[in-house]
Amino acid sequence: MVKRENLNEFFVILVEPKYGGNIGAVARTMMNFGFDKLYLVNACELDDDCYTRAVHATKIIEEAKIFPSFKEAITEMDYLAATSSIESKTDKKHLRNPILIENFAKKIYELEGKIGLVFGREDYGLYNEEIAECDVMIRIPTSESYLALNLSHAVSLVLYSLYIKKEYIPKEKRSIGKIEKGKLFEFFSNLLEEINYPEHKQENTKIMFKRIMGRAMPSKWEYHTLMGVFSRTLEKIRNKKKKVP
Amino acid sequence: MVKRENLNEFFVILVEPKYGGNIGAVARTMMNFGFDKLYLVNACELDDDCYTRAVHATKIIEEAKIFPSFKEAITEMDYLAATSSIESKTDKKHLRNPILIENFAKKIYELEGKIGLVFGREDYGLYNEEIAECDVMIRIPTSESYLALNLSHAVSLVLYSLYIKKEYIPKEKRSIGKIEKGKLFEFFSNLLEEINYPEHKQENTKIMFKRIMGRAMPSKWEYHTLMGVFSRTLEKIRNKKKKVP
Repeated sequence: MVKRENLNEFFVILVEPKYGGNIGAVARTMMNFGFDKLYLVNACELDDDCYTRAVHATKIIEEAKIFPSFKEAITEMDYLAATSSIESKTDKKHLRNPILIENFAKKIYELEGKIGLVFGREDYGLYNEEIAECDVMIRIPTSESYLALNLSHAVSLVLYSLYIKKEYIPKEKRSIGKIEKGKLFEFFSNLLEEINYPEHKQENTKIMFKRIMGRAMPSKWEYHTLMGVFSRTLEKIRNKKKKVP
Repeated sequence: MVKRENLNEFFVILVEPKYGGNIGAVARTMMNFGFDKLYLVNACELDDDCYTRAVHATKIIEEAKIFPSFKEAITEMDYLAATSSIESKTDKKHLRNPILIENFAKKIYELEGKIGLVFGREDYGLYNEEIAECDVMIRIPTSESYLALNLSHAVSLVLYSLYIKKEYIPKEKRSIGKIEKGKLFEFFSNLLEEINYPEHKQENTKIMFKRIMGRAMPSKWEYHTLMGVFSRTLEKIRNKKKKVP
């Protein structure tokens, strides 16, 4: 198989895994599909069960980076994808509102940078504040009768989906522009303030905006252009305010 | 999601699984993707670990059928698909010669009947004589550096692939015609005898023929038509022999 040079690096981030065996099984499936960077957030002990289930992938366990908090684990990431088999039916739907794993697997190769694949706890998954940090939520389709996948199965399905799309050549390549992205969200937040957007709706709307951008996966320059639009808009509003005392 | 009425039934057949935990994990992933028929061949004890890892899918374990041999487990099956992450590099390549899981998942919905998905032992996979019984070998693509998947991961990936193609409407539907299939293979075997095909090559060539038919997934009527061709061919050869004393 001819390997295409990928400019994106993938990181598997497990948030507070509770069973060493699951971490081992995750390491094994990572090696099965050619991934090797494992980040662990406040993980359980890496016990015998962990090493037994890793089988030939113990090196991934040994080289895993361990972080005390989710915030610290994601500082270097350019783009974060959260996973969940559970879709929210509450009004906070923008928070989760996922894209299908198959579509994600194709689109993600258009991006250049450090991509964090975030998997939650065996029992509670990811908390809302962790999901809010992510650019996109990816969904693994499952039967209605039993939504919750085993942790290592979820990782396996995501990595397999990425693996089989590895040879896919995207039409375009875009660098993510982490700084631009951050600034754009700041502008959007300021805009909501300036237009007196109802405070209790602000958080939800900001997340919706983040999700739209997450799915769109804009380039550095697209972010830049949008920033220009927002900046002018803010300026306009502020000047108007000054003129009307 | 609109459910299409499927006329094929899937059976997950685990051959001599050694760890109860793996069987439990298989049951869970079966339920995740809406499968419920589990056949166990000469399995280990269904211990606590099995039930713990099945989580909400214990019913599948309780209703699993247990068989003392592979032969007995497959008697009712119309079509058998063996799985392996390992491709043979020996001269017996016809035995394994697999099709990719993605292609299998689409094509299989063209068939009507009982489909057995066969998974081998955690350590040795499937033996050659078991693979020889199967109509097709399906391959889960993995990284060269580590081919062997965890058993429940392999099941999970196959069932997920089938699940996401469930809505796929095939252009045509074909009933398998188990009897016709059996007869055709008998004719082919007789043909090899009649043409004095080298005996040491016969087994391999028969398996190659089975694999070609397995991949082609012919209908009952196509089998029937081919049988007509073989039957006339055999008749011709036999008559000629009589005439030439």
